[in-house]
Amino acid sequence: MKRFGLLLALLTLLGSAAQAETGSAQAEIRGLLDAQVAAWNRGDLQAFMESYWKSPQTAYVGSSGVMRGWEVVLERYRRVYPDRRAMGTVKFSDVEITLLSPDSAFVLGRWQLEREQDRPGGVFTLIVRKFPEGWRIVLDHTSAVSPPPRE
Amino acid sequence: MKRFGLLLALLTLLGSAAQAETGSAQAEIRGLLDAQVAAWNRGDLQAFMESYWKSPQTAYVGSSGVMRGWEVVLERYRRVYPDRRAMGTVKFSDVEITLLSPDSAFVLGRWQLEREQDRPGGVFTLIVRKFPEGWRIVLDHTSAVSPPPRE
Repeated sequence: MKRFGLLLALLTLLGSAAQAETGSAQAEIRGLLDAQVAAWNRGDLQAFMESYWKSPQTAYVGSSGVMRGWEVVLERYRRVYPDRRAMGTVKFSDVEITLLSPDSAFVLGRWQLEREQDRPGGVFTLIVRKFPEGWRIVLDHTSAVSPPPRE
Repeated sequence: MKRFGLLLALLTLLGSAAQAETGSAQAEIRGLLDAQVAAWNRGDLQAFMESYWKSPQTAYVGSSGVMRGWEVVLERYRRVYPDRRAMGTVKFSDVEITLLSPDSAFVLGRWQLEREQDRPGGVFTLIVRKFPEGWRIVLDHTSAVSPPPRE
């Protein structure tokens, strides 16, 4: 019985360690998204793009299809959001982070822009992977939701 | 030197085994998609839905936002595609399968419907996970591409 008690304690400990790891990964990914929102809201697209994996494989899926490569994604953001007025302020909500392995996860969430002229919004799915430099977005599938969500 | 040779042989063997496993996972996921296309094109939505994880957590992200739950996703398909004419025939192309771990992957691909009245098409991102019953879609983010892709 004593041995069983020890085994149980060990398993509980391992379970707690695994939970702590999952929790810290989720906190790190949450930090990645918070940094994105902060960068966007001070109009800094370059800093916003730091959350994406700097690779020619990085994918952005939007209303015009699939774009490939970190530089290409940055160029698209610059074209679609040429100034602070076009960028407005962004908010993410209903963010759910699901770990798939110790170094990969997917994120589902809602985005909402507040601009002088309109309030576009929608949903995003992100695939994030952990690299030596930290968690980065390797794929971003963003789509608008129509009709726009009501408050 | 002999020992080094043995180590090298072992590493090569492990590398090949890992590659074979990746290849077989990709083939299995490809099979999941092929089964979906076949089911759709014979008008069998129930069989089409077999590729999705039978869980209340399964998510479908479309033009109206996030839907949650296998039953809810099936109901949506039934509502949007009430008959063979609405379903038309589907083709997937440019399918890329990226393993994230031995039991998780994401899939990026294009979809194209051929119907009497129109040819809607777009892009999908799937998160797939391996369960005891096999690989299943846990999240499907599907969006239309405008303007529609030209052949």
